[in-house]
Amino acid sequence: MPEIRYNVITREWVVIATERAKRPDQFKRKEAKKPLPAHNPQCPFCPGNEAMTPPATFAIPDHANWNVRVTPNKFSALASEGERIRTVKGIRRTVTGVGIHEVIVETRAHNLTTALLNDHDVELVVETYLDRFKSASSDPRVEQVTIFKNHGDAAGTSLEHPHSQLIATPIITSQLRERLSNAQAHYDEFAECIFCRVLQLELEDGARVFLETEHFVALVSYAAYTPFSFMILPRRHMPTITEMTDAEAADLARVLRRALAKLYHGLGDPDFNYVVRTAPLEYYGVKYYHWYVSVIPRLTKMAGFELGSGMFINVALPEENAAFLRGVKVD
Amino acid sequence: MPEIRYNVITREWVVIATERAKRPDQFKRKEAKKPLPAHNPQCPFCPGNEAMTPPATFAIPDHANWNVRVTPNKFSALASEGERIRTVKGIRRTVTGVGIHEVIVETRAHNLTTALLNDHDVELVVETYLDRFKSASSDPRVEQVTIFKNHGDAAGTSLEHPHSQLIATPIITSQLRERLSNAQAHYDEFAECIFCRVLQLELEDGARVFLETEHFVALVSYAAYTPFSFMILPRRHMPTITEMTDAEAADLARVLRRALAKLYHGLGDPDFNYVVRTAPLEYYGVKYYHWYVSVIPRLTKMAGFELGSGMFINVALPEENAAFLRGVKVD
Repeated sequence: MPEIRYNVITREWVVIATERAKRPDQFKRKEAKKPLPAHNPQCPFCPGNEAMTPPATFAIPDHANWNVRVTPNKFSALASEGERIRTVKGIRRTVTGVGIHEVIVETRAHNLTTALLNDHDVELVVETYLDRFKSASSDPRVEQVTIFKNHGDAAGTSLEHPHSQLIATPIITSQLRERLSNAQAHYDEFAECIFCRVLQLELEDGARVFLETEHFVALVSYAAYTPFSFMILPRRHMPTITEMTDAEAADLARVLRRALAKLYHGLGDPDFNYVVRTAPLEYYGVKYYHWYVSVIPRLTKMAGFELGSGMFINVALPEENAAFLRGVKVD
Repeated sequence: MPEIRYNVITREWVVIATERAKRPDQFKRKEAKKPLPAHNPQCPFCPGNEAMTPPATFAIPDHANWNVRVTPNKFSALASEGERIRTVKGIRRTVTGVGIHEVIVETRAHNLTTALLNDHDVELVVETYLDRFKSASSDPRVEQVTIFKNHGDAAGTSLEHPHSQLIATPIITSQLRERLSNAQAHYDEFAECIFCRVLQLELEDGARVFLETEHFVALVSYAAYTPFSFMILPRRHMPTITEMTDAEAADLARVLRRALAKLYHGLGDPDFNYVVRTAPLEYYGVKYYHWYVSVIPRLTKMAGFELGSGMFINVALPEENAAFLRGVKVD
């Protein structure tokens, strides 16, 4: 019989459709993606084409010889200049669309992806996330900073060159507000961080954990919404990413690369999104929230039921997905 | 400058990305879909193939000569038999996956779609929705009934034959619970149904209304999440679809067909979902909720920012989309 599980972090029910569930290898890509060149003369993110983007706001090690390069998004969703003005007319509320929208070019190589980089390369990306998060958070118009990656067509990107994005908005989204307030309510009731508790239970149980490093744990949620989606949680309680030590940041690079390599090799380079679910900087040190990375392979499509009810039907078993990923050997 | 608008019904902010916005005709399908046969011998929903599905639970006018036919979904997400059992183990909560999952075959013709049916055909579909909603609601295990349609690949269906679905779940989804409770809070504060208020404001303004019938109004939301998504609202206050008069039900068929015909002819048969957002039957008559139909053309993909923040970036202007649809002539 199918099982409906409650996701204690999002407070949403998910149908685990046992009868319709597919085996892990049924999610493997059928035809290999076409190979990419290491350099593409038309790509705005390839070395030598820096003039095709707005001037860089950050680069490692430096602007002339970058390995990671950050620029304002040429097709920004938000205006970088201008005042944040809130207008309220009865039930109509608007805010001027000001904020920050940056592109983080992760490597010089057009044809790589996180799974194929080395740990040091990914460390530079994590270092960049931390710098840009702090920089965006220091803008007084900004309430929330979202760092995310779209990999592949199904994940909503047409640009192949490995890149992430940062969007800093002048409002707190209702999704984040709800998660903060749910976590706070749990803390008030039980005097514990709900994320720390989930992590402890998952480590005790073991069935959904597929990768552990010194400072991080990668696991498929008990009530995962979609096949092979997983979380990477820091072992130590921290609400914001800025609280990581240098050792933790280096270890995040390692766990992120290895977890994505398991996806890459296990499922044949699936399209995916990831997002860093950090609290805003002003929540530094709070006892009830705990940042993590969500990785969402785009193996299925949202249909009318998901859109219309907000409830997902997961056609894979979290325990089977975790066992499969555990079995994929990566260095 | 982009504008961030607040959706008062969902309480979510949406970026209306004015600078990146596409013109309405840029959303038109580039290549026509391949024409379908009027009858497909392999299709489980075509007349003559009734044995390929479980036995029908409902048919109009009758099982032998049906125009609309309802069967349990052969690949049901939920088990039709079995008890609803709630288990609570600390923070782990599960419910047995029992409920109802039906397929509503809308017509005998394999190659039609709502836009190409006549009003009488669609009236039969609406009549079926009402019957199946009442039938599912009478099951004591059921808390919520979602009626929806997936049209086309991008909307999550591979079955071409025109059909809708009904899923009745043994829990209330958090999305519906939040909307009910937001609407209730608005009622308590302002002594008005927020949907009635939105409808009144939209009719006064006019810029986002694109179709009016005697009993219904079709409009693009002020803070629409995605290009060309729209609502069909009954003019009269009613929380559940069962409260419609016969005249209203016939008019719903008419407004639904005409609104979808505007999409079909204006944008070249785009893939879409629609969902009937009714309150559960036990909310019959409440003053604060108001049912409606959401139509969501699948013209863009959700990417990492939407998944990671819950906030949408709409690359179309609601007012332009409404003006475009207003201009598409349909009978």
